[in-house]
Amino acid sequence: MFDKLLILGVGLMGGSLGLAIKQAGVAACVSGWSRRESTLQKALELGAIDRYDTELNAALKDADCVVIATPTQLTESIIVDVVKKVGSETLVTDVASVKGNLARALIAGQGSVPANVVLGHPICGSEKSGVNAAQADLYQGQKVVLIEDDFTAGENLERIRLMWEALGADVHLMTLAQHDTTLALTSHLPHMLAFALMNQLDSATSGYDIFQLSGGGFRDFSRIAASDPLMWREIALANSEHLVSAIDGFDAELQALKQAVANGDGEKLQEIFSRAQKLRQSKVK
Amino acid sequence: MFDKLLILGVGLMGGSLGLAIKQAGVAACVSGWSRRESTLQKALELGAIDRYDTELNAALKDADCVVIATPTQLTESIIVDVVKKVGSETLVTDVASVKGNLARALIAGQGSVPANVVLGHPICGSEKSGVNAAQADLYQGQKVVLIEDDFTAGENLERIRLMWEALGADVHLMTLAQHDTTLALTSHLPHMLAFALMNQLDSATSGYDIFQLSGGGFRDFSRIAASDPLMWREIALANSEHLVSAIDGFDAELQALKQAVANGDGEKLQEIFSRAQKLRQSKVK
Repeated sequence: MFDKLLILGVGLMGGSLGLAIKQAGVAACVSGWSRRESTLQKALELGAIDRYDTELNAALKDADCVVIATPTQLTESIIVDVVKKVGSETLVTDVASVKGNLARALIAGQGSVPANVVLGHPICGSEKSGVNAAQADLYQGQKVVLIEDDFTAGENLERIRLMWEALGADVHLMTLAQHDTTLALTSHLPHMLAFALMNQLDSATSGYDIFQLSGGGFRDFSRIAASDPLMWREIALANSEHLVSAIDGFDAELQALKQAVANGDGEKLQEIFSRAQKLRQSKVK
Repeated sequence: MFDKLLILGVGLMGGSLGLAIKQAGVAACVSGWSRRESTLQKALELGAIDRYDTELNAALKDADCVVIATPTQLTESIIVDVVKKVGSETLVTDVASVKGNLARALIAGQGSVPANVVLGHPICGSEKSGVNAAQADLYQGQKVVLIEDDFTAGENLERIRLMWEALGADVHLMTLAQHDTTLALTSHLPHMLAFALMNQLDSATSGYDIFQLSGGGFRDFSRIAASDPLMWREIALANSEHLVSAIDGFDAELQALKQAVANGDGEKLQEIFSRAQKLRQSKVK
């Protein structure tokens, strides 16, 4: 499918991609680049890449597909840099959690999102990180969003779609705005709620060690609060506009619920809770 | 430990208690009462009770311990009724999720919380309900809060504590205010957040079926939104004052977080997320 596929950043996502691509035979050669040579050496040892370069220009040479798997914020500058350096026949894609910031960076740097760019986002997190946590089946059966928007070249989208499908992923096509709005609601907002709740519980004084009494429901609910702070700082800032809207929308729901509690309005509460229960039971598998 | 232990309401909680008490030999006879005779027959068949009465006065006769395991709201009137009918040598306890409403009902009906009352709350929910879901080991290793407050008689508290410990439970003593504040924060509030989030996602229009993209984090986070609406209506209203405070406290944390996102204040976000992560990692087992 590709002669030389280059992965920029070989942590959990990039390393797993290398392992999966090699296993599926999607590229004749999987090459790696990272800011740290020790990471590249480790990735080589683990078999996630066939070779590596520590210098970006050397790494990009002859690559027919470049997958950017660096942290969210760094991806903004790297994608612009890469697009400037490669020819229009080289496909450029990524795995970052937010897409609008990348489009804005490309428009600021290049005037548009070039036709050889296919923005992507595999929806499979893990509380782990780093190349040591990489696994060949990370994307197997997982959802991968690819952006299909005004700027998208259908043929290039198709090639990246085939790559992900060869790795067993379930590809969803969305516009850029759909992706960033949807992820703000289903992923970024719940993380903010979990972070805020943990801090509130720590601040609250009930004269008792509150966490002692947390049960299984709380454990599940708060699990995502253990996520990497730096990663979430970057995601929150990259998708700030949609995230602020999502928080405002959530707050409106919460205030209505609170008002029903304060008014002792049992019927209203039953309506709110029943609607949520039905949605959870029917929509979340 | 007891000659005749009477369980009022033999659903998941009451039925499981009957099975556990019989297994542990804590009472010579476990008797049951419920509003529906079919439930009592089922409980008898399952071995959760040894006998039953459909009339409360008959059921209470000769009981030396009465455990009220009816839904939250009904428990308010039943506990007052039971206390009026039994002698001061009969212990009366319960398993409801909120305690302040029961104390208020007793004070309104009897002038005080009588010394033979020991308020309790086993912290072990389940999305299941009904006597068919009852299990003898439901309380094994689970936390049970017993209220130790100004009105508590130490000797009676000790007897109820021994009963729960005989069933393998881990008993925690708290004041009434500590219990209702703590549970508002660790249990009632997270349920409200999950309910509100589900409804928001249903209302939000991103031009995409939002739930299609929900991953494992969302699944865990939203699981409690599938909880019984009627049960939560009653809990929210019974603990409304503490719940409203908890929602306000949460909202203050969320607004601060939102402001940091809106201001692009990465350092502040990192501080908020790091604090939450450390708490989750160190405090929630």
